[in-house]
Amino acid sequence: MLITSLIEKKRDGFEHTKAEIEFIINGLVDGTVADYQMTAWMMAVCCRGMTEREIADLTTAMVHSGETVDLSDLPGVKVDKHSTGGIGDTTTLVVAPLVAACGGTVAKMSGRGLAHTGGTLDKLESVPGVNIEQPLDSFKEIVRKTGVCVIGQSKNLDPADKKMYALRDVSGTVKSIPLISSSIMSKKIASGADAIVLDVKTGNGAFMETPDEARKLAKEMVAIGRNVGRRTVAIITDMNRPLGMAIGNGLEMREAIEVLQGKVPYDDPLVQVSFTLAKHLLRLSGIVEDPEDAIPMLKAAIESGEGLKRLRDMLEAMGGDPRFVDEPNMLVRVARIVPVYPNKSGFIGKIDAKLIGTSALMIGAGRAKVTDRIDPAVGILMKKRYGDAVSDNEPFAYMYVNDETNYEEAVKKLLEAVTVTDETPDELPLIYDIIE
Amino acid sequence: MLITSLIEKKRDGFEHTKAEIEFIINGLVDGTVADYQMTAWMMAVCCRGMTEREIADLTTAMVHSGETVDLSDLPGVKVDKHSTGGIGDTTTLVVAPLVAACGGTVAKMSGRGLAHTGGTLDKLESVPGVNIEQPLDSFKEIVRKTGVCVIGQSKNLDPADKKMYALRDVSGTVKSIPLISSSIMSKKIASGADAIVLDVKTGNGAFMETPDEARKLAKEMVAIGRNVGRRTVAIITDMNRPLGMAIGNGLEMREAIEVLQGKVPYDDPLVQVSFTLAKHLLRLSGIVEDPEDAIPMLKAAIESGEGLKRLRDMLEAMGGDPRFVDEPNMLVRVARIVPVYPNKSGFIGKIDAKLIGTSALMIGAGRAKVTDRIDPAVGILMKKRYGDAVSDNEPFAYMYVNDETNYEEAVKKLLEAVTVTDETPDELPLIYDIIE
Repeated sequence: MLITSLIEKKRDGFEHTKAEIEFIINGLVDGTVADYQMTAWMMAVCCRGMTEREIADLTTAMVHSGETVDLSDLPGVKVDKHSTGGIGDTTTLVVAPLVAACGGTVAKMSGRGLAHTGGTLDKLESVPGVNIEQPLDSFKEIVRKTGVCVIGQSKNLDPADKKMYALRDVSGTVKSIPLISSSIMSKKIASGADAIVLDVKTGNGAFMETPDEARKLAKEMVAIGRNVGRRTVAIITDMNRPLGMAIGNGLEMREAIEVLQGKVPYDDPLVQVSFTLAKHLLRLSGIVEDPEDAIPMLKAAIESGEGLKRLRDMLEAMGGDPRFVDEPNMLVRVARIVPVYPNKSGFIGKIDAKLIGTSALMIGAGRAKVTDRIDPAVGILMKKRYGDAVSDNEPFAYMYVNDETNYEEAVKKLLEAVTVTDETPDELPLIYDIIE
Repeated sequence: MLITSLIEKKRDGFEHTKAEIEFIINGLVDGTVADYQMTAWMMAVCCRGMTEREIADLTTAMVHSGETVDLSDLPGVKVDKHSTGGIGDTTTLVVAPLVAACGGTVAKMSGRGLAHTGGTLDKLESVPGVNIEQPLDSFKEIVRKTGVCVIGQSKNLDPADKKMYALRDVSGTVKSIPLISSSIMSKKIASGADAIVLDVKTGNGAFMETPDEARKLAKEMVAIGRNVGRRTVAIITDMNRPLGMAIGNGLEMREAIEVLQGKVPYDDPLVQVSFTLAKHLLRLSGIVEDPEDAIPMLKAAIESGEGLKRLRDMLEAMGGDPRFVDEPNMLVRVARIVPVYPNKSGFIGKIDAKLIGTSALMIGAGRAKVTDRIDPAVGILMKKRYGDAVSDNEPFAYMYVNDETNYEEAVKKLLEAVTVTDETPDELPLIYDIIE
């Protein structure tokens, strides 16, 4: 096989065989396919697309490009949950312990935040002492004891994805459903999950801006799951606003703890999306048949404190200081809390969620480059939501700041992100679709 | 400007501004645009195309990526002729001296052969002593004295094209009309021609296999010429067979000399295509108004020996030994001449011109890699043409061989290239179209 002929084949809109896809992915990993060949091929994929069969073969080839995690010695159905990335999206920290408290087994490998989106690993590390790099044995031991563990991906997992992701980022080939879906699913499959619930975000703070785009991506990922024998459900949820009220790692950890403490009402958007993800995880786990049957169980796990206990036990087993779970205000000790007032009175008529993420990033809550360091305590705490009435003499948000030198730009960005209107805006759906 | 945003713009099918195209080409040459970014962009161009305006801007940016040749101190209209590449395509060696003999000024920079196609520089070098690397001063001096000079491209001409061509070759992005047309035209424009006649080959031995593809490429190149102010005419000619009877550098030089000696009838395909190219060159030179008026002049230049004299003078001025022009059989002294018989009697019903080129390449007449050395004396001399009757006891070709170890494979390839049929085949057009 010749790589140039395979590139030409995709350029001309033809379908690759399984062997051709393996040739490309193996060649990328062993260096016989050059970067400039891979980017040309990926651009051809962006322009010409791939069939469902090709995408499944691509995903499988990526899974086998490196180590795969074998979780078969753990009891039960191992479930995983993945979000395509949003702002104030703290669902993993709520869902994973709750599912464990209801009898599920959550063995999850997670990623870090980049650009305006947060990452679960950074949120876990807001608790001092937590080590997200657990050896496989200790990862499994924690899952056995607490029913839940969330760690970082092992370094040798899916090296094809690492190379492709780095190249896509610099070659204008990020936005491609075959490439995005295989990237997400290959990592989930390589890390050993039996069943996967995907939270596909849509809106101005998400990668897929319209529900239609999100639906396409969701359908493709569910098809991959079906083709490789991993049950997969995708929930399409709104990201035209931060999901929770907290943006920033310690602030989000505190918010998750508050949900598990029962301090947040059940009709709160963060809780609603968390319950939706959790009920499908419990169904895929075989614990309930009708997802609705999971709701009283989830409420009971909050009310009994069992969900919180699972989070506390997991963090402690990972080296974390449990006092920060018991006293979550310790997570957000900053030099200064800056109240942010709206420019005028009215209603929050539009939120640019991405700009809020950018604002939080500017004060150190996120990273623009992978090498940037994060300050776990800083961030933004929203006091008002989309549609709420605001007054120009009442803060709609507080900014938690440590480095006082350049927070003013971040405040400006936050004000830019929030549009105050004279009328109440139309309601936004929270959950658009469930695809399986 | 960000290169990734520009790649995405083309990926999504939008039109680049002139400044954006200059940014990409300058970045390629100065190294700020990486190879893997350039191939992704070129693949996006393959898939999404370019407008006529974009292609003109791309060509201009490529012209200005390096040195440009100023021929304005030479008298008259400087004309150039370019072929997209064929087999037995010896027209330059016939056309250039004839146009000079009729009063035209041919100052041409040419390329080498690669793969199954021959190159004029290699044919010139079949005459011992010829140096195709002439300094600009001596190039102009030869043009002044003889009206014609054909040399190699200067090293600093169009560096963007050199980089792009090398990358296209290994990234499956060769077949793209915007990229092919800008590559050809940028070199012609940078080497200083006022007017250009293009011979766009079509058929199984050509890059553009169908007349429609050839027409598209021709139209695009003529449009570039119009947009940058260089009069350009494209002739679409057949390459479903070798044009002349000789394939191989010395053999082709000898055939060109025989045409100029008047030994080849005027209805021969090589002469017909040469006359068509030459009459349009003379029209663009302002020497005739109606191209048909050029035909008697061209015949006179052959019959008077003036065309042959121009070729001889040019070769001698470039260091060549003129005895090889006077005694062209000296060009093709080989160890062995192998007669090749058809497998059966009948008619030559189909010729795969590309396979004939490959057969000649196998015995050393061409190069598979740019670093391969060529044997100027070897090659194939066809005795029968497309449509001719053949008999299995009469050779249809002779193979001129020096390295006797592996010519048998080449003979096999040649037999594979020629299909003998029981009926005479349909006539093939020689000239499909003239586009200006």
